[in-house]
Amino acid sequence: MTHLLHLDSSFQGESSISRRLTARAAQRWQATHPGGTITYRDLAVDPIPHLDASTGMARLLPVEQRTPAQHTSFALSEQLIAEIKQAETVLLGLPLYNYGPPSTVKAWVDHLVAPGLSIGEDGTGLLGDNDFIVIESRGGGYGSGTPRHGWDHAEAWLPHAVSHTGLQPKFITVELTMADTNPAMAQLKPLARDSLEQAITQIDRLWEAAQNAA
Amino acid sequence: MTHLLHLDSSFQGESSISRRLTARAAQRWQATHPGGTITYRDLAVDPIPHLDASTGMARLLPVEQRTPAQHTSFALSEQLIAEIKQAETVLLGLPLYNYGPPSTVKAWVDHLVAPGLSIGEDGTGLLGDNDFIVIESRGGGYGSGTPRHGWDHAEAWLPHAVSHTGLQPKFITVELTMADTNPAMAQLKPLARDSLEQAITQIDRLWEAAQNAA
Repeated sequence: MTHLLHLDSSFQGESSISRRLTARAAQRWQATHPGGTITYRDLAVDPIPHLDASTGMARLLPVEQRTPAQHTSFALSEQLIAEIKQAETVLLGLPLYNYGPPSTVKAWVDHLVAPGLSIGEDGTGLLGDNDFIVIESRGGGYGSGTPRHGWDHAEAWLPHAVSHTGLQPKFITVELTMADTNPAMAQLKPLARDSLEQAITQIDRLWEAAQNAA
Repeated sequence: MTHLLHLDSSFQGESSISRRLTARAAQRWQATHPGGTITYRDLAVDPIPHLDASTGMARLLPVEQRTPAQHTSFALSEQLIAEIKQAETVLLGLPLYNYGPPSTVKAWVDHLVAPGLSIGEDGTGLLGDNDFIVIESRGGGYGSGTPRHGWDHAEAWLPHAVSHTGLQPKFITVELTMADTNPAMAQLKPLARDSLEQAITQIDRLWEAAQNAA
């Protein structure tokens, strides 16, 4: 059975652009995969715990050396990785906060990188069959030639972070999302509109092949 | 009175290289600043809460619109920023996890970037008088010409993330720290030893000027 894992991470609730766009993508996926099922996880409402002094080593220690706190943390890694394995497609909404991913997304990824669960004994990534669509939303402009080019450290980091698991994120990025509310960005509104329209077009084409095949 | 804020974030406890090196730096600071006092914060033992759906907007809303959870989150920002303002020097131990900072460090930084507290009304950073020493530890090699060059997204991200506050991190970086325990890296042990020695030399020279002036 065909299955989608849909995650959001913006803390902005109904005003979040990334949430609006992942919702559109999930609807689109549902329309092109009749009978398909969806698991939803909200990293902002139910944050994944940090790897901390009591849990962080869980994924690096053999089972018999783990403390109870480490067993709990490892079980969460198992659950999060199982959610991915059960889905053909993973869809993540990723807002840019302070030029990086939300700490909740970092914590999720830190749980996903787990030898024996997402990485095989020979080092092969075990999640390489999954499609991984990332819809990123960033408030400013980061394009080539702009002053903030190179400041989007979420988009740069994520492919490296998950590389050992075999996941390969495909980004759809909308930017200048603050142009509508920040008076200093007023003259960027047309560019912001273009960016949003392009993202929507990319989303609407995501599963065209599946639809045509159906 | 002269004051140091010392933070660690590794979850590896006594086997952590970054903890060993920040401890050396703190001792060095104490020796060169007689009578100086130190505040210690352990981000791995007492993690800073994620910005989440109930707290994330705290720093973006006027005080009268904040919920109780947002008031609590904003008060933590006030406390963390006050700790920096009370110190001339901030010393942070920063291990590289999955090619990025620990999520606890991201959460700490997300609390630090707060208009009115660390950023003035005219956009000026209010923490520009603080020295910010970052001792980074990374398990592999990331130097120019190596396959993982450009994969250290903690070092690339941090200066941008805190730029609006006026903080400017100065990095001392030790790398190849896994050479001693990873058999596949055995031939890198001499390079790892060099890297550690260079970091120690840089640490021992950090406050030479202060010592000579005393």
